[in-house]
Amino acid sequence: MDKELITKEFRSLQLEICHGLEQEDGKARFAEDAWTREEGGGGFSRIISHGNYLEKGGVNFSAVHGPVPAFLSRGEGSMKSDTQFYATGVSIVLHPQNPQVPIIHMNIRYFESSDGKWWFGGGIDLTPHYVNPDDARLFHTVLKNTCDQFDNNYYPRFKTWADDYFFIKHRNETRGIGGIFFDHLNEQSEGKTKEHLFEFTLAVGKTFLSSYLPIVQKNKSIPALDEHFQWQKIRRGRYVEFNLVYDRGTKFGLETNGRIESILMSLPPQADWLYNHQPAEGSEEARSLSYLKKGIKWV
Amino acid sequence: MDKELITKEFRSLQLEICHGLEQEDGKARFAEDAWTREEGGGGFSRIISHGNYLEKGGVNFSAVHGPVPAFLSRGEGSMKSDTQFYATGVSIVLHPQNPQVPIIHMNIRYFESSDGKWWFGGGIDLTPHYVNPDDARLFHTVLKNTCDQFDNNYYPRFKTWADDYFFIKHRNETRGIGGIFFDHLNEQSEGKTKEHLFEFTLAVGKTFLSSYLPIVQKNKSIPALDEHFQWQKIRRGRYVEFNLVYDRGTKFGLETNGRIESILMSLPPQADWLYNHQPAEGSEEARSLSYLKKGIKWV
Repeated sequence: MDKELITKEFRSLQLEICHGLEQEDGKARFAEDAWTREEGGGGFSRIISHGNYLEKGGVNFSAVHGPVPAFLSRGEGSMKSDTQFYATGVSIVLHPQNPQVPIIHMNIRYFESSDGKWWFGGGIDLTPHYVNPDDARLFHTVLKNTCDQFDNNYYPRFKTWADDYFFIKHRNETRGIGGIFFDHLNEQSEGKTKEHLFEFTLAVGKTFLSSYLPIVQKNKSIPALDEHFQWQKIRRGRYVEFNLVYDRGTKFGLETNGRIESILMSLPPQADWLYNHQPAEGSEEARSLSYLKKGIKWV
Repeated sequence: MDKELITKEFRSLQLEICHGLEQEDGKARFAEDAWTREEGGGGFSRIISHGNYLEKGGVNFSAVHGPVPAFLSRGEGSMKSDTQFYATGVSIVLHPQNPQVPIIHMNIRYFESSDGKWWFGGGIDLTPHYVNPDDARLFHTVLKNTCDQFDNNYYPRFKTWADDYFFIKHRNETRGIGGIFFDHLNEQSEGKTKEHLFEFTLAVGKTFLSSYLPIVQKNKSIPALDEHFQWQKIRRGRYVEFNLVYDRGTKFGLETNGRIESILMSLPPQADWLYNHQPAEGSEEARSLSYLKKGIKWV
């Protein structure tokens, strides 16, 4: 279970997911940009835009290494500054055209350092502009099924972790209807082998298409009016707020001198901010907001 | 020179500036929202939208107090956690309709704590979508004149400070053509009386209209094409990146449980992110980008 194998599997997964998304879109194709990082490593960014259902999105792969970045060598539990790290991952954010189709995010990652530490992390979460409870249940059911193949405690633990992580504190609302999130999983934390944790992380990655495409297929042809597009842009604004203020992946990218266009591919094509916008009582928009809280049991 | 007087003068300045901006706009009026903060204090947010030249903006006043927020009681030079603070300020961001009219920001602030510390801070900076060197010179000249009335060293020091502060590190570009920025000015740092520092800070606030309105008047009737509006939205995206990732005022607001709609009034009505957008060589847009660097001597 060495980093070369993990890296190879992650890169294959990226290509497999791009292929699946292109098949469904039927129009747009991913364009690949290879990039290298001065301090070591690089990646392949695959970007899609102006598709039939995908307005803008990216499926990125990276494998970077070098001295541990400053923010990891500060504070408690910190690493010595001469430690070397290696990190590889796949990261996806897709912004669909149709306001009835949710924004999706998936990320899996592996980290190791020259002092013998290693861990896996990952997550998938769904951000509907309009929350449809049936879709939310479907999404969480698929995630739970994947988790349960590895450990019955994974889904409840990682669902709660997602509720806490994908939370816009200053708005007191969750980013969307959640999903699963996990970080720093290793032998000590889980009492599981590295192989088990790798297989689980990869399985989460492979769940991406089966958790998202059925929801795309169900919603992509629902007609949308101007007011729906307006609401979509407001919700995209919230997505920007989460990613720039709280997201650890974005922070890690900015602090490790990552490729900026790959890190910020998560930002939507367009976002609006209206001062103090409140949806009308009883509207679809207000109903959607009422679902943006922690602790909802979707399964 | 007590906090009541400072607070009163800041609130008057807010109203004076709103009046001046309304006169120039000729159409839109500021609407005032009063708000209170659970831990103590509150403010008056004055928001304008859909004006003749002002698309969206705010001129905010606040005076808040309470126990020092957690992030000020951590780390070096920290305050004891039972310290009380009082902070008052005026904060402005205006997003104009016309891409040829620059975004403007101004902020002045006073902070004191129950352990006897106090300081003034402030700044004005201009963010043109299209950089016009004549306007940049005019803007910096007005700021320099104000500074020179108090101390000949203020302009060069605070201009450099603005270059360093209004910098989007991950893009390696300044937010705009800068201006002045200063923070933590007090008797120890400056060898000046509290009265002098207050008068200087207030003078910076009063310079707002005379530094900005001439630039508005000169540019607001220049016809704009679709491509100019597209570029404006891309530059507004950069403004969002700066404010959510780096701006200390935003951070202070989020961490002190400030009123979120007042803090985020700085965000533009609309922003776009295009993947890896590069303006054509020799274009107006490329020329504008070439001015977004530190150390340009405009005066």
